[in-house]
Amino acid sequence: MITEKSLVDSVLRGWKSNIDSADKLFGSLPPEDLEKEVAPGKNRLIYLWGHLAAVNDALLPLLGIGERLHPELDQMFLLKPDKSLTISLSAQSLKAAWHEINDKLWEGISKFSASDWAQRHTAVSEEDFEREPHRNRFTVLVGRTVHLGYHMGQAALARPKT
Amino acid sequence: MITEKSLVDSVLRGWKSNIDSADKLFGSLPPEDLEKEVAPGKNRLIYLWGHLAAVNDALLPLLGIGERLHPELDQMFLLKPDKSLTISLSAQSLKAAWHEINDKLWEGISKFSASDWAQRHTAVSEEDFEREPHRNRFTVLVGRTVHLGYHMGQAALARPKT
Repeated sequence: MITEKSLVDSVLRGWKSNIDSADKLFGSLPPEDLEKEVAPGKNRLIYLWGHLAAVNDALLPLLGIGERLHPELDQMFLLKPDKSLTISLSAQSLKAAWHEINDKLWEGISKFSASDWAQRHTAVSEEDFEREPHRNRFTVLVGRTVHLGYHMGQAALARPKT
Repeated sequence: MITEKSLVDSVLRGWKSNIDSADKLFGSLPPEDLEKEVAPGKNRLIYLWGHLAAVNDALLPLLGIGERLHPELDQMFLLKPDKSLTISLSAQSLKAAWHEINDKLWEGISKFSASDWAQRHTAVSEEDFEREPHRNRFTVLVGRTVHLGYHMGQAALARPKT
């Protein structure tokens, strides 16, 4: 029981600390800096921020926490590549959505027991889960934490020198 | 017991799949492509690869698996920034070291029980661990998996278009 809790705690801390880093990096930049590309011809910071917000929002139903709060983000930040659509969302609105999503997500995930984490996520059927028990909530959160780190590594390249 | 194993399995799978992606990305490039910077003025691919190899090598003693295999990597890839030293190591030798390190690491970590994972890593004292029980092996592996993802996100920017 103590071991289980400790394992869950490690992953939750990893999630939280990466969300905090993203808060700091994206949340501290003026709108004009968010227009910077991470490398020539690559995604802009605003796109990465919106992309991460959309992916986090989709975790709400995937982990069985609740309905999505901002499904409208998908069109701009998930389904279409950067610069193919005009981003019709101010940095301020994106920041508000980002916090709203992450707060609701944290409220949900911080309550899960170890055994909740080992249960299937909502995109896998009972039958498939019996064959592939690793398709559980914990695997999803670990994967999304690495995904967050992946784009944070890119975003760091465009961060203004301090 | 089943829950514990399942939680450990999720994180091991995350580690393995990211190591496999790094194998594929770095291991498939000819030496001249490894000289590419991930963005203008930023780290070269060869540096990121060596950096990840050095960090993985340091996990061997940190997780209590064994002695380091390639401490000589630190000077070039960890202690000094890219381009401050000449890299006196061929891509082929780096690839061999990378595989040797990851194989030994995998051999060690795939044997740990859930309770082994919840034990302190070797850089924290018993007293400190009593106060801060999250400084365990599991937290280290989760953190290093995200670190791997962080640099993979950067490396992906310099990958030749297929």
